[in-house]
Amino acid sequence: MGLMPSAWAQQIKPSPTLEIKSIADRLRQEGKQIYDFGIGEMNPELPVPHLLKAAISQALMDDATHYSPEAGDPELLEAIHADLRLFGLSYSPSEIVVCPGPKDAVFKICVTMLNPTSRRNRLVTFAPTYESFENLPILLTGKPPIILQTDAHLLPDPNQLADLLNQDDTVALIVLNSPNNPTGTVYPPSLLGELAEVIGRHGQICVLSDEVYRTIVYDGLEHVSIASYLPKQTLLVGGMSKEVSGTGLRLGFIAGPEAMMGAIANVEGNTSSCVNLPTQKGYAHFLRKDVDLRLRYQIRDALSIRREVLMEGFGELVKDAVWERPSGAFYFFPDMRRYFGRQTPEGQLLNTDEELALYLIESANVVTVPGSKFQRPGHLRFAYAVSLETINTGIEQLAEALARLSVE
Amino acid sequence: MGLMPSAWAQQIKPSPTLEIKSIADRLRQEGKQIYDFGIGEMNPELPVPHLLKAAISQALMDDATHYSPEAGDPELLEAIHADLRLFGLSYSPSEIVVCPGPKDAVFKICVTMLNPTSRRNRLVTFAPTYESFENLPILLTGKPPIILQTDAHLLPDPNQLADLLNQDDTVALIVLNSPNNPTGTVYPPSLLGELAEVIGRHGQICVLSDEVYRTIVYDGLEHVSIASYLPKQTLLVGGMSKEVSGTGLRLGFIAGPEAMMGAIANVEGNTSSCVNLPTQKGYAHFLRKDVDLRLRYQIRDALSIRREVLMEGFGELVKDAVWERPSGAFYFFPDMRRYFGRQTPEGQLLNTDEELALYLIESANVVTVPGSKFQRPGHLRFAYAVSLETINTGIEQLAEALARLSVE
Repeated sequence: MGLMPSAWAQQIKPSPTLEIKSIADRLRQEGKQIYDFGIGEMNPELPVPHLLKAAISQALMDDATHYSPEAGDPELLEAIHADLRLFGLSYSPSEIVVCPGPKDAVFKICVTMLNPTSRRNRLVTFAPTYESFENLPILLTGKPPIILQTDAHLLPDPNQLADLLNQDDTVALIVLNSPNNPTGTVYPPSLLGELAEVIGRHGQICVLSDEVYRTIVYDGLEHVSIASYLPKQTLLVGGMSKEVSGTGLRLGFIAGPEAMMGAIANVEGNTSSCVNLPTQKGYAHFLRKDVDLRLRYQIRDALSIRREVLMEGFGELVKDAVWERPSGAFYFFPDMRRYFGRQTPEGQLLNTDEELALYLIESANVVTVPGSKFQRPGHLRFAYAVSLETINTGIEQLAEALARLSVE
Repeated sequence: MGLMPSAWAQQIKPSPTLEIKSIADRLRQEGKQIYDFGIGEMNPELPVPHLLKAAISQALMDDATHYSPEAGDPELLEAIHADLRLFGLSYSPSEIVVCPGPKDAVFKICVTMLNPTSRRNRLVTFAPTYESFENLPILLTGKPPIILQTDAHLLPDPNQLADLLNQDDTVALIVLNSPNNPTGTVYPPSLLGELAEVIGRHGQICVLSDEVYRTIVYDGLEHVSIASYLPKQTLLVGGMSKEVSGTGLRLGFIAGPEAMMGAIANVEGNTSSCVNLPTQKGYAHFLRKDVDLRLRYQIRDALSIRREVLMEGFGELVKDAVWERPSGAFYFFPDMRRYFGRQTPEGQLLNTDEELALYLIESANVVTVPGSKFQRPGHLRFAYAVSLETINTGIEQLAEALARLSVE
């Protein structure tokens, strides 16, 4: 018998969005014109602000290429501390740890909290949910997450959560994600307050609040963190990836109560040493300059226009989809179940979101991610940080492909 | 009861070298002239080659700021594949996974291999050993590593390992590290062959071969990997941190058998997404240009001069230390036990390496790391990637401080 990964490592699924990306890349290599709503990144359509690129480059040329302290470069911790104040949050620099990406920040929280031999070692997440929240608990404890479904408006139900926490004493971590991937939903402050009230009754349970889309909120809404209501139980995950359109730069952070942050910094130091220092220095400079969020809101505004165009095209051409207008992030998550039971021109009956997504790739060159990849079958995820041309033509192509389906 | 890290996360120790760094930084802030042999990095004494900095900067300006595939940018995988050939190793690009730093690469191997519920879930390491190899098994399984001591020449004993593997069926991973941190020892090829022969009798055991110092080998010796002898059971860890003097840039990689690498890439994708893309692109360019290893050997040669000066000063001035000439990396690990039992001018009896290290900081401003931090008490680690001035004056100061000790 040769080398084998652990049984838990064997159980985790590949990233569906990276899988979809490789399908799209293959089609592109075959010379096809693809309308790619698959992966959640804005580059090259919306490039990283020049100010940030120049500051990273300058730090590199200045030989800022040595280790930083494990929790992060002091300059950056100070800058994140000041930036969090803009969102009404008060964390000292010693309550912040910088990680190589928001996904890594999520992983480090899970490594620090999810011990397979503890009574409390389960992670709770609300479907639809981001891929990592399914896989990380399996990788670390062998146990899948507890998945609660959101309601018809894609919002969590505090009563349902209260019932779970009253019955189940194995919960260690609850994941909240607003603005949400894959739905674009923004949780209303009143809902965050209700959730905080429920979770606050169980002082040893931690909220992992994924807020990487905090600067991408539309319609004059403001981003509110559950940490405003529940500071002692929240580990807030933020990062530059989405808000500066630099997903490949990999810088995230965790903010939380000091006692937890010491342990997280120690985990970080033992597993990563530190984060790419020129990127840390550059982001510190960027945050100090972007105190009015102007550069980040430029990216939001460009995305807002794309949202408008997508909503309009979809509303006009894709009549049988059921959806609500997303308020944040750059995802759109329509319910496509009314198209199920219809037949393709080749005679195939479409019964699932996965079959529908595959049909759209093959017959319309339109790439989306099936909702079942996010534990919410029947939907499709559109990441709309793409060109207006892609949106306009892509939706037309998609509508034509849907129109070619025949009702049996 | 409030939030608590897991019992395992609570047990891991802070990084001793980062702890020592913070002591040195504090003394520097107090305005003291410090002779700092504490932390293993070369910057700013030996800066990152300009070619590499320029290539990273160019990639950034060219907007290479999107995600790469989880295993790494195809261009970089190709470049690492070609570079490994220079060391006599034949891995295809699909047998390589890029990680955010060599320490992260080690962590990802441990996450993939060490399952607390498996029979085989123990890590074996040879003392003296690098801090991560102590902490990671505790963090992931609650169990400390099995630590075998090396012999008087700081080399592992294949017979001792054979006895362990015959008696103990819980071993999953064996860590080898040549050139070695903290000793500077380079394992002779014949020893690697013997170790491979022993481990090869147990096909399901994996060797984690930490080779981050592979380009820093002196005296005309050549770096040899145990993967040359045991390719099907070796996961090789390499990285740019030490060989390009860019510890803060954080790029490492794993090369190994394809079946394992698929699982590792999946772990990587679910926990890190990918590595800072401008750094990946820049390193790919660097490797393509440095096919004769000239730029990396320039760094080695600068370190070699420092080794000579350190050896000479130590030999002349520190008569009661016992040591062998290190053949690789940039560490020197003398046995200082003959100084134990002596008394400081303040009347303190020095009985341990930790007391001795503290005395040297306080009375000579010389920073070293006690060997007991690496599971080998009685020694001190000197990281000598520092200026010649630091070495010359530092060793003089150290010798004077040792001369002030009185034998009872």
